[in-house]
Amino acid sequence: MSGRLAIVGLGPGDHRYLTPEARAALDAADVLYGYGPYLDRVSERAGQARHASGNRVEGARAQDALNEAAAGAQVAMVSGGDPGVFAMAAAVCGEIETGPQAWRALDIVVIPGITAMLAVAARAGAPLGHDFCAISLSDNLKPWDLIEKRLDAAAAAGFVIALYNPISKARPWQLGHAFTRLAQHLAPSTPVVFGRAMGRADEALTVTTLDQAGEVKADMATLVIIGSAETRVIARDGKAPLVYTPRVAAAVTA
Amino acid sequence: MSGRLAIVGLGPGDHRYLTPEARAALDAADVLYGYGPYLDRVSERAGQARHASGNRVEGARAQDALNEAAAGAQVAMVSGGDPGVFAMAAAVCGEIETGPQAWRALDIVVIPGITAMLAVAARAGAPLGHDFCAISLSDNLKPWDLIEKRLDAAAAAGFVIALYNPISKARPWQLGHAFTRLAQHLAPSTPVVFGRAMGRADEALTVTTLDQAGEVKADMATLVIIGSAETRVIARDGKAPLVYTPRVAAAVTA
Repeated sequence: MSGRLAIVGLGPGDHRYLTPEARAALDAADVLYGYGPYLDRVSERAGQARHASGNRVEGARAQDALNEAAAGAQVAMVSGGDPGVFAMAAAVCGEIETGPQAWRALDIVVIPGITAMLAVAARAGAPLGHDFCAISLSDNLKPWDLIEKRLDAAAAAGFVIALYNPISKARPWQLGHAFTRLAQHLAPSTPVVFGRAMGRADEALTVTTLDQAGEVKADMATLVIIGSAETRVIARDGKAPLVYTPRVAAAVTA
Repeated sequence: MSGRLAIVGLGPGDHRYLTPEARAALDAADVLYGYGPYLDRVSERAGQARHASGNRVEGARAQDALNEAAAGAQVAMVSGGDPGVFAMAAAVCGEIETGPQAWRALDIVVIPGITAMLAVAARAGAPLGHDFCAISLSDNLKPWDLIEKRLDAAAAAGFVIALYNPISKARPWQLGHAFTRLAQHLAPSTPVVFGRAMGRADEALTVTTLDQAGEVKADMATLVIIGSAETRVIARDGKAPLVYTPRVAAAVTA
């Protein structure tokens, strides 16, 4: 029997974001692979094996899952958010490209999920309502000067910017440097949104401005959105403000 | 009783992408608003009113929905894909900002959905696996020179680019111009993915290269992804190729 590897996006937080397609793929699997905290979000089912692993072993995890699929199993690899956004889908493709020919013959299915920037943007209003970009701030897999180049290009061209992996114990200074860098292009009053753990009990949303953003605590579960010059904040009595970027943009002046 | 407006992302295509949160919001609504083809995707329910409108009247549709919520109704505005990505959430926020004070007192809830670029990327492999941006190619609401500036900035800085609203009867030349512009920065062999109507009966995915991309038919339901210099294509016998962008990026050389 031919094996199959489904790379499944759980979305952020709890089951409210889990699509029917993702649910069906999890139900159909003989065996689940994934980073431990993501696997913990999937209900256990009798007869379904589970292999949890750490967050620094994507390559080994992908190889194990591909080997098991090549042996004929129906395998699901779970991923938080969307598996194609700074997550496992690219890691699996990388292993297929360099691995045994048998892996290319497998059914590989990627099942999209709500990625963190969409969940955070929704909670804040519509900050991604106009052209935007997503940048991973981790310099584990790319040099810091490339990240700076992309921050400069994105801010100068008027993109709203979503920052993934903003900070960790091993990368404590990068987020602050990014704000300093962006301040060369953007006004101090530019809206900045911090969203953490959307859909979970410890969910938190903070709306601030670029000149104050360095004071806000962030961690690996935080997604940061920096507005463009067009991004606006609507104050509301007794309610959270709405942050949005209009669909209409002015002509290039610079 | 206090009214509520939920702006609900249906995801692309059929119900496989509809999250439990979106489903619950649709079920809880007294009245639905939306562009006709999106409303058609929502099952009818006795006692629930429906107001379909055309795709050029976002402002009027938002005002009608806000007025009905202000009168105490539970209103859902449906949106294809994610409502925060080139869709209704920013239009509603814009009306709230300039509208009567009562609209600011409403419960406004945005419910995220699978946006087209995530669905198309998943079907192709993992082309958005590294830093990427989303640009609407419509020059109805912004000048073409701003779009060109963003295409230049994104390609030169190594972002993968997702193009929304690539073409329409009223905008027949813009997509071809975008490919020509991008060819100033990217190799002719750069992978390009066209995805149309993911999850629908007429779903289509085409993988080509930048120098051939102008030959591929596209329409308003098409989402185009242009790779970066790092994006790769894995050929597979008897199966669709896998397109992916590795998580690892090299140092800046330019």
